[in-house]
Parts: sequence; structure tokens; C-alpha cells
Amino acid sequence: MSFQNPVFIPGPTNIPERLRKACDMPTIDHRSPLFGQILHPAREGVRKVLKSNSAQVFIFPSTGTGGWEAALTNCLSAGDKVLAARNGMFSHRWIDMCQRHGLKVEIIETPWGHGVPADRYEEILAADENHEIKVVLATHNETATGVKSDIAAVRRALDAAGHPAMLFVDGVSSIASMDFRFDEWGVDVAVAGSQKGFMLAPGLAITAFSDKAMMATEAATLPRTFFDVKDMAKGYANNAYPYTPAVGLLNGLNEACGMLLDEGLENVFARHHRIAEGIRAAVGAWGLELCAVSPEVYSDTVSAIRTPEGFNATDIVSHAASAYGVAFGTGLGEVAGKVFRIGHLGSLTDVMALSGIATAEMVMADLGLDITLGSGVAAAQDCYRGNRLNADKAAA
Amino acid sequence: MSFQNPVFIPGPTNIPERLRKACDMPTIDHRSPLFGQILHPAREGVRKVLKSNSAQVFIFPSTGTGGWEAALTNCLSAGDKVLAARNGMFSHRWIDMCQRHGLKVEIIETPWGHGVPADRYEEILAADENHEIKVVLATHNETATGVKSDIAAVRRALDAAGHPAMLFVDGVSSIASMDFRFDEWGVDVAVAGSQKGFMLAPGLAITAFSDKAMMATEAATLPRTFFDVKDMAKGYANNAYPYTPAVGLLNGLNEACGMLLDEGLENVFARHHRIAEGIRAAVGAWGLELCAVSPEVYSDTVSAIRTPEGFNATDIVSHAASAYGVAFGTGLGEVAGKVFRIGHLGSLTDVMALSGIATAEMVMADLGLDITLGSGVAAAQDCYRGNRLNADKAAA
Amino acid sequence: MSFQNPVFIPGPTNIPERLRKACDMPTIDHRSPLFGQILHPAREGVRKVLKSNSAQVFIFPSTGTGGWEAALTNCLSAGDKVLAARNGMFSHRWIDMCQRHGLKVEIIETPWGHGVPADRYEEILAADENHEIKVVLATHNETATGVKSDIAAVRRALDAAGHPAMLFVDGVSSIASMDFRFDEWGVDVAVAGSQKGFMLAPGLAITAFSDKAMMATEAATLPRTFFDVKDMAKGYANNAYPYTPAVGLLNGLNEACGMLLDEGLENVFARHHRIAEGIRAAVGAWGLELCAVSPEVYSDTVSAIRTPEGFNATDIVSHAASAYGVAFGTGLGEVAGKVFRIGHLGSLTDVMALSGIATAEMVMADLGLDITLGSGVAAAQDCYRGNRLNADKAAA
Amino acid sequence: MSFQNPVFIPGPTNIPERLRKACDMPTIDHRSPLFGQILHPAREGVRKVLKSNSAQVFIFPSTGTGGWEAALTNCLSAGDKVLAARNGMFSHRWIDMCQRHGLKVEIIETPWGHGVPADRYEEILAADENHEIKVVLATHNETATGVKSDIAAVRRALDAAGHPAMLFVDGVSSIASMDFRFDEWGVDVAVAGSQKGFMLAPGLAITAFSDKAMMATEAATLPRTFFDVKDMAKGYANNAYPYTPAVGLLNGLNEACGMLLDEGLENVFARHHRIAEGIRAAVGAWGLELCAVSPEVYSDTVSAIRTPEGFNATDIVSHAASAYGVAFGTGLGEVAGKVFRIGHLGSLTDVMALSGIATAEMVMADLGLDITLGSGVAAAQDCYRGNRLNADKAAA
Repeated sequence: MSFQNPVFIPGPTNIPERLRKACDMPTIDHRSPLFGQILHPAREGVRKVLKSNSAQVFIFPSTGTGGWEAALTNCLSAGDKVLAARNGMFSHRWIDMCQRHGLKVEIIETPWGHGVPADRYEEILAADENHEIKVVLATHNETATGVKSDIAAVRRALDAAGHPAMLFVDGVSSIASMDFRFDEWGVDVAVAGSQKGFMLAPGLAITAFSDKAMMATEAATLPRTFFDVKDMAKGYANNAYPYTPAVGLLNGLNEACGMLLDEGLENVFARHHRIAEGIRAAVGAWGLELCAVSPEVYSDTVSAIRTPEGFNATDIVSHAASAYGVAFGTGLGEVAGKVFRIGHLGSLTDVMALSGIATAEMVMADLGLDITLGSGVAAAQDCYRGNRLNADKAAA
Repeated sequence: MSFQNPVFIPGPTNIPERLRKACDMPTIDHRSPLFGQILHPAREGVRKVLKSNSAQVFIFPSTGTGGWEAALTNCLSAGDKVLAARNGMFSHRWIDMCQRHGLKVEIIETPWGHGVPADRYEEILAADENHEIKVVLATHNETATGVKSDIAAVRRALDAAGHPAMLFVDGVSSIASMDFRFDEWGVDVAVAGSQKGFMLAPGLAITAFSDKAMMATEAATLPRTFFDVKDMAKGYANNAYPYTPAVGLLNGLNEACGMLLDEGLENVFARHHRIAEGIRAAVGAWGLELCAVSPEVYSDTVSAIRTPEGFNATDIVSHAASAYGVAFGTGLGEVAGKVFRIGHLGSLTDVMALSGIATAEMVMADLGLDITLGSGVAAAQDCYRGNRLNADKAAA
Repeated sequence: MSFQNPVFIPGPTNIPERLRKACDMPTIDHRSPLFGQILHPAREGVRKVLKSNSAQVFIFPSTGTGGWEAALTNCLSAGDKVLAARNGMFSHRWIDMCQRHGLKVEIIETPWGHGVPADRYEEILAADENHEIKVVLATHNETATGVKSDIAAVRRALDAAGHPAMLFVDGVSSIASMDFRFDEWGVDVAVAGSQKGFMLAPGLAITAFSDKAMMATEAATLPRTFFDVKDMAKGYANNAYPYTPAVGLLNGLNEACGMLLDEGLENVFARHHRIAEGIRAAVGAWGLELCAVSPEVYSDTVSAIRTPEGFNATDIVSHAASAYGVAFGTGLGEVAGKVFRIGHLGSLTDVMALSGIATAEMVMADLGLDITLGSGVAAAQDCYRGNRLNADKAAA
Repeated sequence: MSFQNPVFIPGPTNIPERLRKACDMPTIDHRSPLFGQILHPAREGVRKVLKSNSAQVFIFPSTGTGGWEAALTNCLSAGDKVLAARNGMFSHRWIDMCQRHGLKVEIIETPWGHGVPADRYEEILAADENHEIKVVLATHNETATGVKSDIAAVRRALDAAGHPAMLFVDGVSSIASMDFRFDEWGVDVAVAGSQKGFMLAPGLAITAFSDKAMMATEAATLPRTFFDVKDMAKGYANNAYPYTPAVGLLNGLNEACGMLLDEGLENVFARHHRIAEGIRAAVGAWGLELCAVSPEVYSDTVSAIRTPEGFNATDIVSHAASAYGVAFGTGLGEVAGKVFRIGHLGSLTDVMALSGIATAEMVMADLGLDITLGSGVAAAQDCYRGNRLNADKAAA
């Protein structure tokens, strides 16, 4: 078990020293005022990271999947109609969850590697004259394919169609790493997790609800208790939870927001972009291609890299682990075996990224792919050299 | 914020050094074989703690409340009938959850301070000739009142009535601290949390399902995704989760089970009993009474102590926190203001318990109660002196 | 191994959470400017704790014993004469060190339990007309006997005799717990360690040199390299050490000084005094006596408690460890077997102190001493009750 | 402050997770039997790492410099004669220490970059017919120049000359990383530190004395107290120290020896060699040269790399720190400004080494050196690819 090497899975990410210490906390009384001094700043920090002035932030001891469930069960009733694009494993799973909870989903099948098709959303919304569609789902960053979607465009589609549906966005692998504008994009529920851009261990579903979404909770009849945001809101008003909160992780979340805001959100996003550009330059130098079909959908948090026909991309992941003690991500669902993934989000430096690139080169060479050793590293070094001042700040 | 003093809330408990270190873990790839080396021993350890040979253990990144929800949603359908006694805040909440999920609950109202009335269960079950009752709920240890119930008697009631209902037991504040016999008592679903007898931070709902409960999942139609045990079982078969697991806490759980089994379950239970006896001796020496009405329902994990008429018991908790940096528990629900609670579970030594008793004495004296300083301590010392060898082992 | 109970040895002390985290630091480049940001504030913090405006602080990766050696070897030459009182094991050892390094020591034999006799110092200094005595040694707090000495009186003795000798003070078990006035008392070298009032793990000798002591280093010919303060001073001027510094401990020292100064030195001293008063009240309630002969020499950091004739006091220490997992101190040297010691310094709360007192009672009762259980606790509770506000701040 | 990147200074090294946790220990009673369970296995572990059956291991809360002083002061008297080669900054400093302690040193001036000249030792020893030379000093690995010396050859020189002088070896930057044979080479005192091959924080001088050296302590009159090995031996016999030991670091040392022996000493040495070969291949690819003049003196723990005439090598170190958050070592003494150093010892993986190489490339390119990006990485990858199985074990 090599704890010395960084991990390059698309979350959970490498945890900074400062956050490990913030989470590793002795027990405090979670019904004492002290807890409020952790809870409220953490919620406020998340709000700032989401660029929202008014969102209500609810944090569950759960995961992003739990966040999806909180979004659906608090705002919808069985039989309600939902519009969603399926362009990867995570959008697929959210759709599946809708169906399991008795929602009707109008699915826009979208090729993996593409972003969510805002034009198709607009067509369908415009055609929905009775406004049967209650919610539009959009996956901001498809972790399975390394594809970023244009949420502003989805908002424009809703507006163009003059449709009152709510907009729920899965930002699990984008929020805190890539620009996310809750207010500006008119998001109604955003879902994130502790273990990606927030650089913490898994264990928190981080959600934000707009006023409109909060109002929808009044009529929504899907059963819910653990994920009930009204119980949560009532608890928060008393510095408490409706059950036992994950105090250490919340303390870490508060600290994580502090780190992100200290670095500056735009600097955080720029760092993620620079590191991602280096990874993509390496992929080009290797003569390989991304699963993401074009630059405007390239993700700054994860790259899914296609391997040549006939080669099992999953071998890269297992060989990297066994031979070099380095973790990459496998392909999932319909790109299983066809891509391997390099996660490049959270607390990462250019220097760490280079070690991942160098490892991938050795692995691919070991497995017989025609890769020039050092070629990807050199390409990435070119990207990183000009940006050295930020490199420093980023990993503090 | 006094981290030097122990906490005496009825969970989360004081976390042993060894477990804090086990949980404070760098990121590993939760889809690698390494994760299986944490997951499976942790589940096996929980099974042993439950004294079960065959239960299937499912661990969610959640809390005991989530465990309740997993029990209900996996095994029941809307409209199903449930039998439950309400004898404290936590049984009340589980009943409330049933109702919110569309279940019909036959409630046996039971005075707070009493255990669940097995005789009333038997009457009702015997009268339910059509076997409409699908599940019987029982709270093994009511954290709000410090009352332990006789689960074996509930099982006997089911058997005497020849009733096929499943038995769901909330063991959140009993399991791993007090004797729990999953197989012998014919429990179908048991619910625990990481932050009580397992001595960890909050963040895990620990559940165990009997074969009968697993079979019930096939027909159950309450909507569920995050808490779906079949998804979970499928994941486990591949050393994985259906979503991102809380790896550090699972590693801690594995270690916690190791600690409990190394100490010996019967020794753990005996230690909890001895420490609790000391607390109760102190209560007697103070001239006060427990909320729990009789010795057979005295809890070995938490004592709810009645204060004199006209005195606000909650003042004890706030004064202890502000003046001495010590956390006790307040009364909840219908005993709010009437009791304060001393939690005495998890990683506790006689020596730590004495500091809690000594603090309670000072607090009560400060607030004008007629307490002889040192009296409770002396009574507890008498209990603890004969048992010194275990004291040592217990807190390793 | 019970890590849950506090320790009651007279150092190393219980380490606060905040300091454990400050010390547990990844490797940094100790030749980089970053190191200076740790070193200089740590030295400045120590200076403030010593109440000095001008002392030069040198910190060695060593212990208090190394600090003694630094004091002697930097300022003296073989054959130089030193005046010292021997009133306990630690003053004895410093005298022994002088002799081993070729110094001539005029020893004032002083009964153990008494402070250093300032009047005898004055007589001898007055008689030393040729000023052959180069240094006067004084142990501020004899850890072996729990005796505090009056350093201001020693200074007055020097002044009254008009003698130019330097004054070296062993403050290992007093500094940062009891009032120490480097400038006001005209101390020339003060010696402390990381593991007492500074609440850290052992590993640092903390020394402070007056200008006069620094001047004496020019002529001093005792061999020294590791402990050479001129090498150290040269290093410090470049943010560096002459060898590899203990970076983590220095970071902890910096943080420890922050904690002490945040609490306020006078508050720290008052807390130590209050806790010590409680311990002493307990000793009285038990019908026992301190080794320290009178209140003006009672130490606020450690109490050596005489046990009845014919009883082996060391049994208390071994029984406390084996039966209750609690560490007290044994008697050393000529009071071995006659006293046991309760350390009450560093990061301690009233509540923790009560658990030590309660444990000592059980131990003594177990061993057949005529002790009323709870009696010492009640006496200490009386002391602690009035001071509750500080209790809180103290252990943060 | 980038804690995410590895450090590449020649000690202190990157500290493995397991050792950080072993060192970060609550206070225990260092006079209790428990301490013996840490101390004795730690000493035994060091003995095994030194490949000795009989050496007595003494561990001081100090540094390698303190270890040098312990070697000299315990075995020698003022005026004694010592033979030593000066071939770098650390041999220079040990010689300087001898002189400051009144020893006469016959110095063999040796060009920096060369190993200690065993033939010259032999000539001088053979000429010393009266056996005035009491001790021969040899620096096994010159950290300043990256030069390894042949200690077996020095032993052969002593034997060939039939000279009874003791052999003292500075193994601070070799022991636990490169082969060291205390018994086979007839070493009399070996000196190591915690912060190099043992992968811990600084704070321990680790020394080993042969029977002959122990006998020499009887006659040796150099003053010593803190570093006295006879006091230490007497303490060890009672599971104790003559003063307060650095318990946490000793616990870490015990664990570190466990890690080294679990990996297998020969595997540890092979890993260091492989990683060093990769670094050297990179240096070759860059068209640069080592300070070490020939392969037989190449160090496997640190490489000092000469930069072109007219270029200030120290700029590399400062630029790497400020622009990329990576620490390399500067040149010291007569090679200051002429070399920069890459430390490659302790807990390091091939993957980490590659990130250091990649960083050095960017830095040198930024500073205008004619370096082909990726060239050194490719050369090192070639070295590392064949050895993947060990890579994994090494960094566990």
C-alpha cells in the first residue's frame, strides 16, 4: 500500500495535510453552541464556492448519490416528469434513481463524450406546453467521460422555452474545481460531495437549494426522512442536526472552504485548467485521444483517454497499481476497457501531475503501446513552466 | 474548547487514539483490491459483535437514522403495517419515520422510563390473525431515558403468538456495549452507528439483515436507491460500493471490531456494566433517581437522572460546559428539563467516569442542589475498586 | 496501555491536541526561509514566557540535562568555581555534572523538602572576596521534592554580597507553569525543557542567556560543539541551525507559546496554583503531609506526598499503573519509597486533576492505607468550584 | 508551504504515514515497564540494520552531530591523536569538533568528490609505530559531495598496518539506505541519525559501540554527561534513561526498523540503488556531471550535480522552491554555488523520484540552461521500468 505516491483517480482526491488535521478531531458535543461555530461557517463557505447569495446549503452525512436523492425526494412526487440527458455513467445513474423513485424521465440519449445538448432540451421544453416537466437534470461534469457541459446554455434553453421547470445540477466532480454559478445560472438544486473539489474524505453530500426548490418541498410527497431538508433547516436554526452530524468532516469542510477562498476561486479554477492542459498536452504527445470529443467539453478535473482498438484500457489501471503503486481510474459502462482515466482535481500540484504522467508513460510502454518515454512529460512541462507562481500558491 | 476532558454525552463517545489513527487515512483507490481488505474484515467483525453467523452486514455512509430508513425501505411497501412501542424520543422518531414513508403503525404508548412491553406485543400479535403486521420494531436501548428493553422477550412474544412478522431492532446505543444476540433473538434487521459502542466518529449506519429480511427485499416497493441493500450486496461482491465509500471510517470500524474482540465481548459488556453501576451508585448517593424505573431496565450505556421538581435539569448541562468544559446530555422530548444524562459508553475507564461524577457534583452544588461533594465519587469508587484488573485492559 | 486516562507524572505532561498536531509535521527544508518563520517566533515566544526583553534564546534538540550542559560548557572553564545548594535529586545531578566537567563546586547541603537557602548563599558569596565563584546555581523547582525556591532572594543575596557571579537557574519544571522573571531576577542562564510547562513531547532543551552570559562564552574553554551557543547564534542569523533542527518540535514550541500567551501568563500561573491547591487540600484531607516543609516552598507543578512510616510509597505508583492505568511519579534518591508524586503541570484541567485524586484514593485504600474514599476529592472540589471560568479557558 | 510535493533534500527525508503515526504518541510514563517495550526492540532493530551481533546501541535525543560528540567524548582524552580524511563538509565538521575538544587530528586532505583514501590511511598507520593514533575517522557517505567511501578498505588498511586504533564511522547519510556492516568491517563506533535512512523526523542521534569502544570509555577523560554512554547503559538496564527520553521518536524508530526489516535490508539497498541510478541517468541525459568523480564512489542516497561554469547552482534550489514548491539541496563549503543536490534516500518511490527529476528539468530550463525537457525523465524511466515489482513494496 503506497501512501507516498499521489492518487490520480477522479475522486476521492489527495487530501491536504491541513484538511486531514481538521477532520481528525476529538469528540465534541454536537448539541453545544460550539457546533454552530463549525456548521454555519461551513455552510456559508459552500455558498460562496457556489457563487450564490441566497442558496440554502444542506449537508448530509452521505455521498453525492445521497445528494441526488435529497434533490429528488424533497422536491418531487411520484409520477412527476423529469427531463434528462444520458451521456455517461453518472447521468445514467441519476436517471435510474428517478425511475426507482417513481418519476417519469424523458431521456435524451446523447453519445458518451458529448456534453448535454442544450438545443434538444429547448425543443422538448418548448413542446411541453402543459409544463408537465417539473425538473430538468444536468450533469455538469461527467466523471465517466471527462466531459464538461454548459449549464448556462441549459438555463438559456429553459428561459427560451419560457418553461418553469426547476434545474437540478450534478456538480459532484466540478464544484470547487471548475467555475460554478448557482445564482447566475438559475440552478435550483446543486449537488456536490466532500471528496472531490473540497479535497476531503468521502462522507458528505453537499447540496444547495434555491428558494424555488425550497418552495417545492412543501408540495413534494416522495417519502423522505434522512434526506429531509425541512428537518435539516429546523435543526440548523438551533445549531443542530436532526441526527448526529459528521462533525469532523464538517470541520474539514469549513477549513476546505477557507483554503479555496484564500487561494481565490478563480485561481483554483485556473490551476485546475493549467494542470488539465498539461495532461491533455501529454495525451496528444502520446498520439492518443480523449473520450471528450472537443475542447469546449474538455473537463478540467478528469481526462478519459481512449486507448487503441484491441487494447484493454483497464490493464493500464491494474498494472499501474501493481507495478508502480499508482491509482488511475478505469473506464465505466459503455467505455469500460476503452478508456482509462486520470483524475486531476483537488489538491494537486504541477509536480504531482508530472509524476502521474511519467507513470502512465511507463505503464503504457510496459504494456506494449507505442509511447515515447518522456514525451508526455515534456509536453506537460511546457504547459507548466510558464505558470510557476501559481503552482506554489496552489498546494499550500 | 476543552479537548482535554472526556465527553459524557451518550454518543458520539470518546475516540481511542488507535481508532483516530485508523480513520485518519490518506486516500486509496476504493475500487482497488486493497479496499476489499478493509471492507470484508470490517463486515465480518460487525457480524461477530452481533453474535451472528449468517447476518448480512451493510454499512452506509450515513447515521443510525439512515440505518432505520434502510431497514424500512428495503423490506416494506407503502401501506404495510408495523407494530411498535413508543417509550422515548428515539422510538418516537422511528415511528414517525414509518408514518412518513406511508407505513401504518400500531403504536403501544409506553411510559417513558419503561422498557418495551413484550406482553402487549404478544397480545396484539396474537390478535393479528391475518398477519397484517409485517414488522415489529423494538428499541433495544432508549438513549433518551436510559432504558434497556428485553429483546429476547419480544422474540418470545412473536413466537408465542406464532406470528411471522419480522423483528427490527434499534441497537444504536446498545450494540458493542451491551449484549446483543442477533441469531439467538431472531432479529431480522439490526441497526447500529459508528459513534457509540464502536467508538468512532459519526458517519456510518451499520445494519445487519437476516435471510428473511433479505428475502423481504424482493417484494418491498418503498422507493430506495442510496439505502438499497441489493445494490450494496452486488457492490460488495466486487470489493466495491455502489458509490464512494467512507474508507477511513470503514478502516476504523475494522480496527474497532478488532479492539472489541481483543478485549473480549463479555469483558466489554462487563466493563460497561461496572462503570454504569458506579454511576448509578453515585446517583443514589446524591439522593436522586433515574428515569429508568427499575433495575432490569437500567441501561449500561446511558443514565438519565431526574432532578428535583422545579429545577431545570438543562442548566446542569450548560453550566458543566461553560464552567468546567465537560459535556453531559440534556433531556429530550417529554423529559426535557426533567433529566440530565450521563453517557457512559464506548472507550471509557473507571478513572474517566470518576471525573464525570466529580464534575456533576460540583455543577449541582454550584446550582444550589443539596449534594454532598465527594459522595457520589465515593460510592462509585466502591464499585470500581474491586475490578481494577479489567479497568486496565478496557481502555488500551 | 491506557491512553484514555491523563498522566500525573511531573513531566512529560499531557499534550494538548493542538500541540500534537503542530508537532506532527511533514518534512520541510530546514534551510529554507520557511524555517525562519518557525524558529524566530518560537524564540520570541520563549523570551516572553521568561519575561525577558533581552535574553538570547537557544533551543537544542536535547533535554533539560543538555540545557544544563549548555549553560556550563559555554560559560565556564575547567577549574572554575561554582556555588550550589543540594536539596533534591535534580540539584544533585546538576552538581554532579559540574564535577564531571572539572568544575569545583561549593555545595550547600540542604535538607530535602527545603528551598535553596538564600541566606547561606549570601554568607558564602560575601566571604568569597576574590570572586572565585563564577556561577551560582539554583534549582527553581525541585521536581523530586515538590519544592519551589525563591530565586529573587538568591538574586538579592548576590547583590547584597556585591558579588559578580552569574546566576544559572534550572527552571525545567517551573518555567511556563510558575512565574519566572528572567530580567527582574537578573538570571544569566535559564534552562527549560519542552516536556513540562510547554506541554510538548520531550526533545528540546530550551535555554536563555543574558548578555553577561554571552560575554562569558568568549573566555570559557570547556569543550563544546553540539551545545555551542555561538555556533547556534551564527546559524540563527541565517534562519538555520549548525545541524539539523527538530522542526516539528520547534513548530510545536511556537504554537505552545501562542497558547500560553493567549491564555495569559498570569492566568496560566493562577490555574496551576488553583489546581495545586486542590491537590494539597486532598493531601490534607487524607491526613498525609507533603515533602515540602512549608507553604512558601510548595510547588505548583508537582506534589511529593509522604506516606506513613513502614509503607513503601512506590507501591502506589505501580498499583495505580497496573490496576487503574494511571501514572504517578515515584520518589527519587533519598526520598525513594517515602514519597509518591503527583505531577500537576502543563495542560491540565480541574476535572482531570479530580480524576487523579480519585484514583490515588482508590489506590491507597487498596493498599491498606487509612483513607476515606471521596475525602480528597471533596476537598479539591471545594477549591475548584469557585474558579470555574478559568477552568474552561485553561484546557482549550 | 507545499506539503503535497515530496522533498528532495538529502535528509530529513519524506516521512511515511506509518512512521508519522508511530511518533505522534500521547504521553506515557517513561519510567514504566511499557517504555522498555519500546526501547529494547528499537535498539535491537538498529543492531540488525547495522548487521551487528554485539554492538551496544545508544540513542540520544540529539542529532548526528551529537552522535559524533558521543563517539569522541566517551572514548578519548584530551591530547589523543586522531586520523581523518577531509573530503567534504561533514568530514570537515567532525574534524573541527575533534580539535575543539582538544584532540590532535592528522588530516588527510582529499579532493572533494573523492572517497577517503584507504591507501593513505595505511601509510600513515604503518608509520605510527608507537600507536599514538587512537582513532581513525571515516565518513561513509559525504552528504556534501554525494560520495560513498569504502569502509571495508579502511578496515583492511588498519589490519594491514597491524594498528590497534579504533575505527569510528559517520554513517549518518548511509545507514539504513546503503549496506553497512558493523561487525564485518570492524567498526568501533557508528553514528546515524533518525532523519535519513530511518525516515523519521530529526531528533535522535543513533550510535553503536563495539566492545573495544566500550572498554575505551573506562580510560577516556573528555568531559561528558549528556552523552555519557555508561550512564545510558545503566539506565537501559532498568528500562530507563538517565533523563527524559524522546519516547515518540523511539517508538517511531522501532517501527522504522520494522519497516526496513520487513522490506528486507537488501531490498532497501537495491531500491536506493535503482532510484539513484535513475537520477544519475537523468544527469547524464542533461549533459551534466556529478561531483563524485567515479562510479565506485557514487552515493545511493544523494547526488551532487555540477552546473556549468559561471552558473550559480544555488539559483536552482531557490527557484525550485519558489516556483514549484520543491526542495533540493544547495552546495556547501567549497562546492557552494557549483553544485546542487538531489536527495534520494529514505521513503522514496520511483514515481516520486520522477517528479523530482521533472521539476529539476523545468527549473534548469527556466534558468536558461540548455536542457531538453523530458530527457532526464526518459532516461530515469528506462531505469525504473524493469524494476516495477520492488517499487511497490518499497513505499508501503
